[in-house]
Amino acid sequence: MTISLEEPLVTTAHKRQIAGTDPRTGEPLSSTADETDTSALDEVVAVAAAAAVGLVALGRLGRARLLRRLAEAVEAHRADLVAIADTETGLGTARLDGELTRTVFQLSFFAEVLDEGSYLEATIDPAADTPMGPRPDLRRMLVPGGPVAVFGASNFPFAFSVPGGDTVSALAAGCPVVVKAHGSHPATSLLAYQVLRDAARESGAPEGAIGIVFGRKAGEALVSHPAICAVGFTGSLSGGRALLAAIGRRPEPIPFYGELSSLNPLVVTAAAAAEKAEEIGAGVVASVTGSAGQLCTKPGLILIPVGAEGDKVVAAAVSAMADVQAGPLLNDRIHASYQQDTDLLRSAAGVSVLAHGMAGDESGFRVRALLVGVDASQVSAPVFEEYFGPAAVVVRYRSIEELTAVLGQLPASLTATVHLGSGERPDELLTTLGSLAGRIVFDGFPTGVSVSWAQHHGGPWPASNSVHTSVGATAIRRFLRPLTWQNAPGAVLPAELHDGATSIPRRVNGVLQLPSRSD
Amino acid sequence: MTISLEEPLVTTAHKRQIAGTDPRTGEPLSSTADETDTSALDEVVAVAAAAAVGLVALGRLGRARLLRRLAEAVEAHRADLVAIADTETGLGTARLDGELTRTVFQLSFFAEVLDEGSYLEATIDPAADTPMGPRPDLRRMLVPGGPVAVFGASNFPFAFSVPGGDTVSALAAGCPVVVKAHGSHPATSLLAYQVLRDAARESGAPEGAIGIVFGRKAGEALVSHPAICAVGFTGSLSGGRALLAAIGRRPEPIPFYGELSSLNPLVVTAAAAAEKAEEIGAGVVASVTGSAGQLCTKPGLILIPVGAEGDKVVAAAVSAMADVQAGPLLNDRIHASYQQDTDLLRSAAGVSVLAHGMAGDESGFRVRALLVGVDASQVSAPVFEEYFGPAAVVVRYRSIEELTAVLGQLPASLTATVHLGSGERPDELLTTLGSLAGRIVFDGFPTGVSVSWAQHHGGPWPASNSVHTSVGATAIRRFLRPLTWQNAPGAVLPAELHDGATSIPRRVNGVLQLPSRSD
Repeated sequence: MTISLEEPLVTTAHKRQIAGTDPRTGEPLSSTADETDTSALDEVVAVAAAAAVGLVALGRLGRARLLRRLAEAVEAHRADLVAIADTETGLGTARLDGELTRTVFQLSFFAEVLDEGSYLEATIDPAADTPMGPRPDLRRMLVPGGPVAVFGASNFPFAFSVPGGDTVSALAAGCPVVVKAHGSHPATSLLAYQVLRDAARESGAPEGAIGIVFGRKAGEALVSHPAICAVGFTGSLSGGRALLAAIGRRPEPIPFYGELSSLNPLVVTAAAAAEKAEEIGAGVVASVTGSAGQLCTKPGLILIPVGAEGDKVVAAAVSAMADVQAGPLLNDRIHASYQQDTDLLRSAAGVSVLAHGMAGDESGFRVRALLVGVDASQVSAPVFEEYFGPAAVVVRYRSIEELTAVLGQLPASLTATVHLGSGERPDELLTTLGSLAGRIVFDGFPTGVSVSWAQHHGGPWPASNSVHTSVGATAIRRFLRPLTWQNAPGAVLPAELHDGATSIPRRVNGVLQLPSRSD
Repeated sequence: MTISLEEPLVTTAHKRQIAGTDPRTGEPLSSTADETDTSALDEVVAVAAAAAVGLVALGRLGRARLLRRLAEAVEAHRADLVAIADTETGLGTARLDGELTRTVFQLSFFAEVLDEGSYLEATIDPAADTPMGPRPDLRRMLVPGGPVAVFGASNFPFAFSVPGGDTVSALAAGCPVVVKAHGSHPATSLLAYQVLRDAARESGAPEGAIGIVFGRKAGEALVSHPAICAVGFTGSLSGGRALLAAIGRRPEPIPFYGELSSLNPLVVTAAAAAEKAEEIGAGVVASVTGSAGQLCTKPGLILIPVGAEGDKVVAAAVSAMADVQAGPLLNDRIHASYQQDTDLLRSAAGVSVLAHGMAGDESGFRVRALLVGVDASQVSAPVFEEYFGPAAVVVRYRSIEELTAVLGQLPASLTATVHLGSGERPDELLTTLGSLAGRIVFDGFPTGVSVSWAQHHGGPWPASNSVHTSVGATAIRRFLRPLTWQNAPGAVLPAELHDGATSIPRRVNGVLQLPSRSD
């Protein structure tokens, strides 16, 4: 499929082109985008920086309206977006339809977050005498931190790319966004950008509230640009490290919010194995192989007890693997890494193959799913790697001590999952799992990340920076900074810090107060 | 004055000693502490890491009791602490008494923050159907991030050192603390540590909840230690950069919260100059020269309009300078830098000396205060430096354009101050000042930082990392990370996430709810 690009990003004739590849054939696609050169990038960032004042002027409720308009626009272009993304990613239209629904939901959800207003952390300390002496009138609120660079992810062409969570939470905060499109889906990115830009224009948002650049060099130049104030990144550990190093070379370092790598251990206790071996075995395989294993919350390390009950879990998983079709990976780099890295895994000490997915069509970037096994006493470094694709390692453990020893060697993850027997409550194990991840999943599977108020998608390094999420309401916190007004005349304060009734929760003199009126 | 150190930190005979210097004489003091070597540091950190579980087990209310007990202990040792700190810092007992009061207040204040419980951001999303499909039960709360390294500051031997804001907010969060004592006040640090440690022991806190190390090498080793999970730092830009580089070399980078450098511009409008020249001129000098100019919020750049009204402000400042006695700087390095850097400032293009403080006793590290002037059309790099000591630059501006042009060249600061005429509301100027700082002060002076719910002590780089504060209730947020429980059995959830009535504010199904019972 070829899309007609509405306009070229840059008009010069000799630009390097960025083209996607059809993962089902391995053939390059004809739809392309121009790589963004330095002068074009400067212009995109300058327009974004100029949009900052206008986004603030829209106000909280104006930005909520903007987000709802963007949601409508993305929904209105569903068919085109899904079709082109399927061509560039091979993820399939069912999965991409679901992802688009998630993306639209996310836009509306952040409109609700803006309406509600708690995210401002509005706080008023009236002048008072304190044990420290007289205190002036202090009023604090979170304000936008300035233009944000957002790096699209290969595996979510919508929900973690141009119209995705980083973009939406930054716009909600009042920050202009410049997206660095992922090289695997340039045409999807360009179309999504055009949809957002046109809808933003129609709804009166300032020009430049959303911008886009293409190409790896443009990405590095973007995080180094003095007008960029924060970075949202979902991608590889090495990619994240490179951007962090570029930020370290800036005269003024900026916050980097990276979601980088995650092994997502899943522990099955002996009691759970005894109670529901079939359900766990089949569920694990579905979670490992969905979207061809290219989800950041894919369970990569499955810890199953040695013995007859554990054997049943493994048998159920092996049986489920027989029905897993070879799925296409996203691009040639991911395809080559998967082949090479799983070859190394297979030959690691003590590792044996438990099952492959179906053989058959392995054209394009398709790969067979893989389940390997190793005894807890023989684990080595390759067992603790993240394999981006439909592969997982089963580790068999003999005792809680052996389980704990393996968990003690793991890097932190986005999630940790545990299957328990009814009434079982292994406190120490749960404490360990909580220290290893940002989300503990009980008796389920970690793939599938709801967008909600209580969601956390993050965790200690290398899962992410450890103190903020990239999914859910509080993702907005990353792109805000506190500002305190001391003894300010009422007229210069933002509406949310005025005396009297307000429509948002506030803390006054240390006491949290619910809204006293509706807007 | 010599204190008898209760015990040596390390018993080996040939340790390098760290001794303070009497700033009033420049002579070394006899009280010393041993430099911490690698094996001693490993032990301190190991004990701290082991204390983490115990601090969590104390619970929110148990930690509040601990902080109140620490406050009592610091108060009980007021006389000794102030006396030894005066000897090592030369700040004077009046100032140090005030600082100790602040430190005690801060300990009690964070106990209130714990009692109140909002800081947990407790959030419950019950299982539900959503436009994205079924949502599991998700419950989110902030949990301690692990052991914290705290770097004591030279200029606040209590409030930003061993018993200071970083230590208190980390302990409140449930994180063990290892303080790297500042080399200028080792004996004060050791005594404060002993006071806290003994009080913590008495109140049943786990051993190692508070540790201490001495020496520059120990500081770098501390931030590089795998068990340390975050760093709180108040100090120089170069020191902060060095620690950031060390963190960048870690296999697992950790959050660094630095408060580094701040120019604190203060703008006087023509209308304000016309209304209250005397008050502003005298107030500026008091703010510039208090604590010998060694406050991070000292106004370093004073922008005053050209003309007769502005002249009156300058005249009042010059007149006030005549009464400023030479005060001792904290150590020889700060003393040497001040002398050398202000010499360069004096000889910078267009800069002329407006006034000196009193001549007379310049023994030890005492220096005379300095006020220089420059025309806005002639500003150059030395005008935008922070001079750590009793010096400030007056910039005379002819127009709003000239004022804006100067502000456009400034690095970000902790504070920006503006003196306005009655009813004056210069929106663009206020927007500019808000973008330059974390706190905007109206018709006052930036020194004096209240500890309260609405305080913000931070700002874009190089003032600090831009998104969190080091003073006030939300300083605790730096040392917490989110954790989400998915479909967890009630029995494994922390009390704050149980169904039913609670004593803290929570968000349930998106709706913020006030406490429904008291503990």
